[in-house]
Formats: sequence, structure tokens, C-alpha cells
Amino acid sequence: MARVKLYSLESSGQKRTIVNVSGIEVGKDFALIAGPCSVESEKQTILTALAVKEAGANMLRGGAFKPRTSPYSFQGLGIKGLKILAKAREETGLPVVTEVIDTRDAGWVSEFADVVQIGARNMQNFSLLKEVGKIGKPVLLKRGMNSTMAEWLDCAEYILAEGNPNVILCERGIRTFETYTRNTLDLSIVPSVKEVSHLPVIVDPSHATGRQSLIEPMSLAAVAAGADGLMIEVHYNPAEALSDKEQTLTPEMFSRTARKILALRNYVTESLNSVS
Amino acid sequence: MARVKLYSLESSGQKRTIVNVSGIEVGKDFALIAGPCSVESEKQTILTALAVKEAGANMLRGGAFKPRTSPYSFQGLGIKGLKILAKAREETGLPVVTEVIDTRDAGWVSEFADVVQIGARNMQNFSLLKEVGKIGKPVLLKRGMNSTMAEWLDCAEYILAEGNPNVILCERGIRTFETYTRNTLDLSIVPSVKEVSHLPVIVDPSHATGRQSLIEPMSLAAVAAGADGLMIEVHYNPAEALSDKEQTLTPEMFSRTARKILALRNYVTESLNSVS
Amino acid sequence: MARVKLYSLESSGQKRTIVNVSGIEVGKDFALIAGPCSVESEKQTILTALAVKEAGANMLRGGAFKPRTSPYSFQGLGIKGLKILAKAREETGLPVVTEVIDTRDAGWVSEFADVVQIGARNMQNFSLLKEVGKIGKPVLLKRGMNSTMAEWLDCAEYILAEGNPNVILCERGIRTFETYTRNTLDLSIVPSVKEVSHLPVIVDPSHATGRQSLIEPMSLAAVAAGADGLMIEVHYNPAEALSDKEQTLTPEMFSRTARKILALRNYVTESLNSVS
Amino acid sequence: MARVKLYSLESSGQKRTIVNVSGIEVGKDFALIAGPCSVESEKQTILTALAVKEAGANMLRGGAFKPRTSPYSFQGLGIKGLKILAKAREETGLPVVTEVIDTRDAGWVSEFADVVQIGARNMQNFSLLKEVGKIGKPVLLKRGMNSTMAEWLDCAEYILAEGNPNVILCERGIRTFETYTRNTLDLSIVPSVKEVSHLPVIVDPSHATGRQSLIEPMSLAAVAAGADGLMIEVHYNPAEALSDKEQTLTPEMFSRTARKILALRNYVTESLNSVS
Repeated sequence: MARVKLYSLESSGQKRTIVNVSGIEVGKDFALIAGPCSVESEKQTILTALAVKEAGANMLRGGAFKPRTSPYSFQGLGIKGLKILAKAREETGLPVVTEVIDTRDAGWVSEFADVVQIGARNMQNFSLLKEVGKIGKPVLLKRGMNSTMAEWLDCAEYILAEGNPNVILCERGIRTFETYTRNTLDLSIVPSVKEVSHLPVIVDPSHATGRQSLIEPMSLAAVAAGADGLMIEVHYNPAEALSDKEQTLTPEMFSRTARKILALRNYVTESLNSVS
Repeated sequence: MARVKLYSLESSGQKRTIVNVSGIEVGKDFALIAGPCSVESEKQTILTALAVKEAGANMLRGGAFKPRTSPYSFQGLGIKGLKILAKAREETGLPVVTEVIDTRDAGWVSEFADVVQIGARNMQNFSLLKEVGKIGKPVLLKRGMNSTMAEWLDCAEYILAEGNPNVILCERGIRTFETYTRNTLDLSIVPSVKEVSHLPVIVDPSHATGRQSLIEPMSLAAVAAGADGLMIEVHYNPAEALSDKEQTLTPEMFSRTARKILALRNYVTESLNSVS
Repeated sequence: MARVKLYSLESSGQKRTIVNVSGIEVGKDFALIAGPCSVESEKQTILTALAVKEAGANMLRGGAFKPRTSPYSFQGLGIKGLKILAKAREETGLPVVTEVIDTRDAGWVSEFADVVQIGARNMQNFSLLKEVGKIGKPVLLKRGMNSTMAEWLDCAEYILAEGNPNVILCERGIRTFETYTRNTLDLSIVPSVKEVSHLPVIVDPSHATGRQSLIEPMSLAAVAAGADGLMIEVHYNPAEALSDKEQTLTPEMFSRTARKILALRNYVTESLNSVS
Repeated sequence: MARVKLYSLESSGQKRTIVNVSGIEVGKDFALIAGPCSVESEKQTILTALAVKEAGANMLRGGAFKPRTSPYSFQGLGIKGLKILAKAREETGLPVVTEVIDTRDAGWVSEFADVVQIGARNMQNFSLLKEVGKIGKPVLLKRGMNSTMAEWLDCAEYILAEGNPNVILCERGIRTFETYTRNTLDLSIVPSVKEVSHLPVIVDPSHATGRQSLIEPMSLAAVAAGADGLMIEVHYNPAEALSDKEQTLTPEMFSRTARKILALRNYVTESLNSVS
């Protein structure tokens, strides 16, 4: 007899998971996570954090440990970056989402984080999944670039099975033959996940498209598809960013996009969902 | 020096193409195309046509020539099917979108059609593209399942270069490793096409997802992404459909979905696009 | 009850198909097909044909109708090209493999050809498959760039079901995310096809790899995997070729590669297959 | 100026790397690695090791830490498995290839291993790559299922940059839309790697094809393509295997396949490479 998976709607009696992040109820409240790809300096992080908060974001993202394709690319500021994030949280009140990439660091990194991120390249790093499963902190689990929905949910299961129910899924684009975009954003995964699982699911249009110009339309599409949140790369000065500049919004761009996102989200929940 | 392609915004002086289909200005008016996968009988087609019109569709789709994976599957009613479509148009006033699959038939099939469809499997059937390019009728050009945007637009170029400017692009899902959905709907192609080309682009969520339950959320997402229309499979009794039953809506389902689509489209054009 | 497909080993009582091409028994004899991508001139075609014959090829390839991504690329010489191919056959005795891309041309083009090729982009052009099925000539059916084995074999079924048993399959690379090669050559399809079907299967390493330097190792690998033949692009002067120059061998390169191919094929059939 | 990568032929002055594994010079001697997917018991491992040695294998593979899609699948015997592998090495003299999946274990696991394997799912676990880079032991680096050649080589660079030059690459199939095989074996990567890098590259046809029947033809194809070795799953009784039984050979099958592999390798190096 097949085991009923913990991630399944069957297992939760059709009840949807709400992940509480410093009072934001992800799965009910809309999670608008924004911030720089990498923490580069205190100034860059604080300025960006203040700007995204002003624009309507309710969480701050920023990487202190960066998994980079080449060993010669900037690898992140490490603990110094985490301390900067803590300071940004203090100044803005925004909870912090940051990535962990090594089992040895999972414990102490999660002390600094409000949400611990598992990146796409580590989706099937099962040791790391078990480690964040042992810690109570909310986990943002990105979908691997070539991962099926079933495999992704089984990775969530690794975390749930260790006793941590606070898993937020994040679609960030899959690898296809298309070259115009960096990856192909698979928005149909959003309602698909919701019909088999009780876990909340958000969307990262920045890594998926790799293009500034596509982030707004794909953010709006994600909202209409039913996503529980968005994670968007913003830098107070993208031209200076050490990574991902082509896909990073300025505070001005983000501000306009955020207004549209929040207006559409409001329209969808207040008006559209009651059309019958 | 590279030739400026006819499909490009550069070539049209940034002016967007409007394709006039019996008074519906595709590219400006929202095209809501619905109907059965295959024309199976007069009763089935007329009943479905009346139902989708009632629900708000402004064009009727239906295949008389069906490109099927197996030679032993139902191949369509041929000319008999076209006559049924003509009758449905007469009864409902809806213009008809139907596929042509053979260069020898392009001429006379287009006499019955208001929009001639080139299917995904024939996207790079260059002889057929040239043939529909020679005919003035609007052409709906579906994206091939493994086609890049650049290749797709070059196929549109084959039609434009023959003197037919009336090309409507249609995203219908690409082939990836994901197995939960029939294909992967690539909604980022919608704003991508719009930033390089002046052609209108619509979305077919039925073939892309292959699942009834995903058609509404992906239709709404397509609207939010800026699509100029949708093409949705509807059958007055999906259980009896000779093809694609898993992805075909009942008139009741379509009616509810169409109301949401049109409400959202209205919200996007009337309110959201003016947020700044 | 599922129909037993004509392509299946079950249907043939485990007997393998031999396709007779002017005395060459494809499926038993090794088919070494070489020649230019496109027929460009009489001189180019005859010189190349003489060279590949000298090097050991037993069939000549050359396109008179070229399916090209852009309408502004060279589209082939048409009937003039077919006449040049006929002349090259006369001079060398090599049977000719050439592509047909339009149902209207299938009849008369096949008069010039010893083997009629269906290209990858037309694999699911079902009208064209039926047309070449009605003609008795051997058909070389290339695998579509995103075609599963099951879909490919169903396309062969279209031809077989019309009464033409002379189908030769040709793997030519599939589309993946890898960018170093033009496509990804899927050699595992060779023994896979052989365990479900009685049809012979050959390999085109030129289109699959897109690189001169990879053609020899992949040709040898195809022989070891059990392929019934190879189709290789050769031009007496690749630098002048109007298409595909990066993947086209010179006669000198082909001569060396052909010697290795034939030596390995001999070793495999004479010695290796009797190791037990 | 772009940095010259340590993996490049340019960096090594065109000299190819030889990795010495207990006297076997990988890159010159052919590496025939065989054994069970997972170490399940002392009896299973020793019996299999004796059988593969008898058949001509010169290294033993076996997993003690298994990265499994589901948390409820067998996860390996851990240290007990490593001790069994050590005993099998003692009894047969075969050096041992085994996987490490956690940075915390890299040090002590490598004490038991002659070659430390990084699995496909951990290819971009950069922390783990750095860890095995700090240890002198030879590393077998599997290609990720959706990894380009460039990304794979950059992962090798992570190891080389830490001072460990002993990297052996292993192609194990990539993820495509084809469903007949478990993955698609990309043999063109073998000569591709060799034209840009000095590192040896071997092939795993077991995971790539997922089918017993395809392992022999794809092993022979890999040899003909120039692979420096093969890694094949063998179990003294596949029906009892706790993982991967469909793709695991019996000792009898492996014995016949190994004879062919070694005969072909000998023919290629002794005869075919001198054809000119």
C-alpha cells in the first residue's frame, strides 16, 4: 500500500498550510519578497531594504552564501552578509529570507534567518533538506531547474518528515530549449501544486525570465494563476550589482510593479474569486 | 547587413498589427475562441457553438482535418465538417477558426474559414506557410512544441513575406520533462513576442495543460500576462468527445470561466494598466 | 483490444525488414550515404558524388527542396537540382536520397529519387506521410527534433498503413538544453527501435552534432550501437557551401572517416557479434 | 581578460590528465567499474565483487549513502556499507568507488574510498565540491541531469581550484522528453569534453538507459566514441536488489558484455586508431 505523503491534501484533510513568518501568514496573506540577489554591502542592503519596504514588500531577500556556476565568481559575504541582513531587518522590520548551502551551516545560518532558502541547485541535496527539516524555521524550497512536480514535492516531504511543517514552495523557471528567456517560467505548476498539496507556493519571475522587462507581466500572471507570493530581485542600483543585473529591478520599477501586483491581488481575492 | 524582418516592431514603426476577423479587431478586442477539438456531427457542433456564444465567446473553433499521432485515430470529417462549421456560423454569427494540413487543400478550405489555423506539428511546414501566405485570410499560427520564439517568428515571416499581413500567433505549450501537465504553457512568450514583434498573440491553455482543472487559472494568467485572446476547447458533452476529452470544458464550466476571463480582461485594461 | 502495429516485431513475426535500394539491402548491408546538404550546382554535386563514391559511400544524398528556418535563406534548386542528382547517379552509379516537402510534389519528385526523404520538421506532416505511403519508393523517415520513439514509429505506421513497407528510420539528434552541439544525438534510440520494431534505422551525425570534429567519433559510436547505416554531409569544398558548412566534411576527411566506419562495421559483424 | 580554466587543454599544454587509482591509470588504461547500486549486505557485495572481477572489471562500485527521490526509500547502510566495501576490496583487490553526499562526511568517507563519487544531483553542490577538492583522493564527478558541458566543467574547476587534480568525469544521461529510456545518454559529450578539456571521461549506461537490454549496445557505443571507461550496475541477483533492478545486469550478462567491451576497446586502440 502506498504511503500517504505528508505534503498531500489527503494527508491534511484538505486543509491548507499557513506558514507564519513574523506574523505574515503565508498561504493567506500575500508574500511580496524583494531585495538584492547578493548582500554586497551594508549601504546597498539597507538602502534597498528601505526602498522595497516603502514600495510594499513585506519580506527582504538577500544571499550571503551564493552558489555560483564558476568558482571564480563572487561567492557571497558569508557571516558578514548575515549580520548586514540582521541589521536591515532591525531598521525596516522586514523578516529576512536567505539561502543556506551547506549542512554544516544550517544551524547557525537559520539563527539569522526568518525563512531559510534551499536553492534550485540544492533541491535534491537530501542531507541539507533533512538538516533544515530538523530546525523549526520556515523553509523556502525552490524547484530544481529540471525537476518534475512529483520530485519537488518529494523534496518537501524530506523536510516535513523531519517534523518541520513550515515549507513554502517556490517556482523559479525550468530549463528548456528556449533561449530568449533565461529559463521558462512554469506557471501551471502553481494550480497543479495546489490540487495535490496543501503547501503554499510562490513564484520567482526574476531568475525564471532573466529580463527586467518580463518581470512585471509574469508577476501579474503569477497572481492571476493563484500564487501565494512573489520573490523579486531589486537593487538600489542594478548597474553596480555583482550578480544578476539584467534581471534586477530598480526601486522605481519595483515600486510601480508592486502597486500593480497588490492591486491585482486585491481584485482577484475581493472580486474575481466571487464571480460564479 | 541583416534584413529587417517584417514581423518586427522596427519594421512596423512600433505600430501593432490589428487583424480584422469579421469585425473583431484582434490585437485590440479580446478574442475568446471556443469550441470542440473536432467537428463530430452537426448536432454536437451547433449545440456547442450556441453554448459558447451564450457564454461570451466571439469566435468558434473546430477541426475538420485532424493531425493525429496514430493513423488509426479519428482523422476528422473533412469537407463534411467544414460544411457543418459553415452552418454553425450561420446560426450563431460566430466567425470560424479551422485547421488546414495540406497544401492542396489550403485554397478551398480557406473559403469555409474566417481564420485558417496552422497547427503546432505543421509550424515548420514551409510549403503550407507559403500557401496560406498567398491567401488573404487571417492565419492563426500555433507555436511548435519545441520551437524557440525566433523560429516561430520566422515561420510568421514566411506568411508575411507572401503578402498576407493577417497573422495571429498562438502559444499552446512546449514539450518539457514535466509529466503532470500534457505540455508546459510558456506564458513568458506573450510579453516576449510583444517586445520584438507587432503581431497579436493568443494562448491555448487546453492543449498546453491537458487538464480541465488547470484551464481557468491558466486562462486568467494569460490575460494578466497581456495575451490578446484565448482559445479553449469546449464540448456540449465532453464524455462523448472523440478526442481530447480530459482537457475539454463543459458549457457550464466554460461559462463560469468566460465570465472570469472577461471580467479580468476588463479590469486589466480599464484599471490595472493605468496604475503608475 | 489494442491493434498490433505494422511496425512492430510482433506484427512481422520477429522478422526484420530489408529495404532494397538499387540492390543495396538496407537492414543487412551497411548503408553509407554521403553528399552535400544542398545541390548547388552540377559541378559541386558531381565532384562530391565522385569523391564520396571513391571513399566507400554506397548512396548519394543531396537536397533540391530545402526546408529553411528563414524564408530568405537558400531554398534549393528545385527541379533543376533533381536533374543534377539524376546526372550524378548516372555518372557514379550511386542511388540518390533526396527530400520531398510538399504533398503536391511527392509523385514527381519520387520519380527522380531512389529513396524519398521526409525531414525532421515534416515528421508529423501526416498528409505527406500518406502520400509517400502510396508510392512504392523507399522512404527515409527522420525523427523529429522533439519526437518520442513512440511518436516516430506511429509516423512510420502512417506510411506502412498505406501499403509501402520500405521505411528506413533515421535518428538525427533531438533538441535539449545543451548548446555545445547543435542537437543531442540519441544513440540509445538505435537498439531501442530494434527491440520493438523490425524497421532498419540509420544515424545522421552531421545534423545531430553540427560540428565537423564530432562526426567521426559519433559515426563509430553509431556503428557500435548497431545502426544499419550513416548519412553524412560531405562537400567538395565546405567553405563554399550554401548551408551547414560547420558540419560538412571535406572529401579527405570523409575518406578517412569512411575507412574507419567500414573497418569497424566489419569488425562488429565478423568478430564482435560472435563473442559469447 | 578571461581566466584560463584549469580544466582546459590550453591550461595543460594539451597534455591529458591520467588519474592513478591503485595503479590503474585512468585516461590511459580502460576503467571498467562494476558493482551493485547499493551495498545491501556483506554477502551481496562480496559475491558481486568476486563475479565482476572474474568478468574483467578493474574497480568496484557500490553506494553506502544513497540520494533517493523519496525519504521513504532505502537510504543506504552508511558506515556499515563502507566497511563492507573495504572488506570486498580486501577480498578482490579491486579499488572502490563510492558516493559522498554530505560535506560533513567527505573527510572520513574518503578514507574508505579509492575514488569518491559526486552524484548527478550534487553536481552543483559547490560546498561538497570544495570539500572533495581539499582531499587528494580521485573524484568521479557525474554530470547533472540538466547540466551543459560548460557547467559540468565549471564544477570540475571547483575541485581542481582547491588543489586536487584527480578528476574523472562521468556522463550518466540527461533529462529529455523521451520516455522509453530513463534518461537520454549523450555520447557526443565524450569527444566534446576531450576537445576542450584534458580530463578523462567515462560513461554510465545503467542510469542513462534504465534498461538491461540497452546496456551492452550503449557500452560498445561509448567505447567507440572514445570513453575512458564504463561504470555498470551488476548485482549477483538483480531480482533481490533494493534499488534500480530494471537496469542491473546479472553476473552472466555482465560477463558477456565485459568480454565484448574489452575486445572492442582493444580493437579500437590497437587497430582502428591507426587507420588513416
